[in-house]
Amino acid sequence: MQIIKYPERSEWASILSRPVFDTSALNSTVGAVLDEIKTRGDKAVFEYEERFDKVKLSSLAVSREEIEASVSLVSEELKAAIRLAKENIKTFHHSQIFESKKIETTQGVTCWQKAVAIEKVGLYIPGGTAPLFSTVLMLAVPAKIAGCKEIVLCSPPGKDGKIHPAILFAAKEAGVDKIFRIGGIQAIGAMAYGTQSVPKVYKIFGPGNQYVMTAKQLVSLRDVAIDMPAGPSEVQVIADDTANPAFVAADLLSQAEHGADSQVILTTTSEQFIADVLQEIEQQLVELPRREIAEKALLNSKLILLKDNSEIIDMTNQYAPEHLIIETSDYMNIADQVINAGSVFLGHYTPESAGDYASGTNHTLPTNGYATAYSGVNLDSFVKKITFQKITKDGIRNLGPAIEVMAENEELYAHKNAVTLRLKE
Amino acid sequence: MQIIKYPERSEWASILSRPVFDTSALNSTVGAVLDEIKTRGDKAVFEYEERFDKVKLSSLAVSREEIEASVSLVSEELKAAIRLAKENIKTFHHSQIFESKKIETTQGVTCWQKAVAIEKVGLYIPGGTAPLFSTVLMLAVPAKIAGCKEIVLCSPPGKDGKIHPAILFAAKEAGVDKIFRIGGIQAIGAMAYGTQSVPKVYKIFGPGNQYVMTAKQLVSLRDVAIDMPAGPSEVQVIADDTANPAFVAADLLSQAEHGADSQVILTTTSEQFIADVLQEIEQQLVELPRREIAEKALLNSKLILLKDNSEIIDMTNQYAPEHLIIETSDYMNIADQVINAGSVFLGHYTPESAGDYASGTNHTLPTNGYATAYSGVNLDSFVKKITFQKITKDGIRNLGPAIEVMAENEELYAHKNAVTLRLKE
Repeated sequence: MQIIKYPERSEWASILSRPVFDTSALNSTVGAVLDEIKTRGDKAVFEYEERFDKVKLSSLAVSREEIEASVSLVSEELKAAIRLAKENIKTFHHSQIFESKKIETTQGVTCWQKAVAIEKVGLYIPGGTAPLFSTVLMLAVPAKIAGCKEIVLCSPPGKDGKIHPAILFAAKEAGVDKIFRIGGIQAIGAMAYGTQSVPKVYKIFGPGNQYVMTAKQLVSLRDVAIDMPAGPSEVQVIADDTANPAFVAADLLSQAEHGADSQVILTTTSEQFIADVLQEIEQQLVELPRREIAEKALLNSKLILLKDNSEIIDMTNQYAPEHLIIETSDYMNIADQVINAGSVFLGHYTPESAGDYASGTNHTLPTNGYATAYSGVNLDSFVKKITFQKITKDGIRNLGPAIEVMAENEELYAHKNAVTLRLKE
Repeated sequence: MQIIKYPERSEWASILSRPVFDTSALNSTVGAVLDEIKTRGDKAVFEYEERFDKVKLSSLAVSREEIEASVSLVSEELKAAIRLAKENIKTFHHSQIFESKKIETTQGVTCWQKAVAIEKVGLYIPGGTAPLFSTVLMLAVPAKIAGCKEIVLCSPPGKDGKIHPAILFAAKEAGVDKIFRIGGIQAIGAMAYGTQSVPKVYKIFGPGNQYVMTAKQLVSLRDVAIDMPAGPSEVQVIADDTANPAFVAADLLSQAEHGADSQVILTTTSEQFIADVLQEIEQQLVELPRREIAEKALLNSKLILLKDNSEIIDMTNQYAPEHLIIETSDYMNIADQVINAGSVFLGHYTPESAGDYASGTNHTLPTNGYATAYSGVNLDSFVKKITFQKITKDGIRNLGPAIEVMAENEELYAHKNAVTLRLKE
């Protein structure tokens, strides 16, 4: 890890620069696979499953029996944990339900918004050695609360053609309708265009490798909405001398173990604290099963000593971290000044892993500085707000003359006429 | 206009298909201009202004004096209309301010969202013969309410190097900070990357021609968020025998005059009404200054006779119109069943032009069927919601064991350790 002491503001941008992540080189490869899925549907999906996931499938849809059977394959302990997490995610996202207000902007002119669920959504859950059942909950629970009518889930099968039972169990608990054993580009294509087996959806959510992300970007240009652009995961910790160096080290390492391209940043005004954290990191690293990955991530990572809280806040807002943990005595004072971040963890007993799994907040968050403009996934992500307006005869009398003047000045005379005819009546 | 009577459901998709709008052929041209702006900044902007807008500029920023001078160049009548529209847009968007709620999901675990303004936003206002001051209001008023600290506006200059005074006046009224006489791809590039004159922004809003849209899409892949993908404008009218054929004809024509690629659809269960509307369209068309444009748009447009309201509602939700006008006696009954639309206009005295200018709702809406997944621009478009969580010692005792189990099952042992250390303390 790099220790940086009192950097000049002019150096901040280069210190905070993220690992480069340019997927444009993949566009033509990924585009070609998407085209095949679009034109040949299921047949192409089966072929790519054989080629990329090394498995010859006989069906894409996971049967009801297979989903039911997952229940007995998951430990009681994990089932209870998943249920607890689900309840917290449900409680928090349920509190985000939009309440419509009717507003009379001018006498006789009433406007309102209505939040309506996106009818069909697709959730992508990556494969790999460990099953990401937590992401199933983070996407399916709010989709269900929003009222999405069709929730499609795709996840790559193992060599045995099966999806991990913990993923199936989480999907069943969350109420997912349709599960398909499809991974990678072919899964994104299937949900974007629809195939004989897989319904076309209107919005695709979920993480993935560079191929999946490139596919999501390409389909988002015309065919379907996506949750947000993606990049490597990252955490920033703000700590002072009241923080426990062991806790902070553990928090930094939980981000570092995500992937070799993860980025981890500590900002503090205490030089002693940096030394203490470094020592703790060394100790904890020894015990970590994913030590190699974490060590690679730490090469991109920085322990930064700054002059005061004002510098810390400015650097935070410039970095716009996906996760921000504030382990200081005055955490609320700092939190109030944060304007760019995905999810913020407050105080000494709020590790990032709480939000990753079970506090109730969503763990699908803007990386790569996108927190300057994007929210993390929340209930809004699964609805769109339709506006309505109702104008009475009195209302058009009040509003009409202004519309006529504006339409005339924009040289749109049919617009004007639509009002004039009503005023004349 | 094409009259279609009682089409089979299997034919709906082809009947409702939109004019094709494939900008991928422009990617390399537009990409090259963007690269120039990125690497050469202002110098490239000046060159492209000369090449594309045929004007040799001496400065890009519009001076305070020029903005102030716009006041005297706009008629009192238009100023009053702009102010009235501004107040209504302000009232409606102000009512959308997000109220944060703190939720205790588990004892000792408190989560909440905070809406924070996107710090820097860019608004693009197209040029052309008529000044689109209404779009200035639609974008700048909510940006101001949201609390965006830096609002940058770009609009192409005329041959005299000036932006139309009505645009400057609307910008001044809405409180826009920085106005630049830059159009097209070079404006999008300048706001996405920043130049010596133009600040880099985090999100770009606003309509434009195919070059502008392509530029917005390209920069949205990595550099900056955008409001939404775009396509030609469209309206659907649902009418019954209680509707006034002259009103409906005027409403259809106000969409048709927007552009030759606009699409206009009437759905009704009354054959007589179709005949009456056709006759009205013929009559009104004669008087229209933009008759040629409207006639071209009508070639893409359809008058569709359906069996019953249930068919009308299904077709509406399949089409997902940008604008939907419901001119029937039971408009609320139909409106309640609409799940895909941008903005809905209810009853006989609510023309689309009211929403285009002054009712208070936003006129930047999802076209091309994107209403299945996207909202129109609203106050949310100018903020992101940051999540916060605070866990007490008691809270981590309640939640910790479940996190440990889940982290272990996802094979993320550093995640687990961040909890274990806190539980042990």
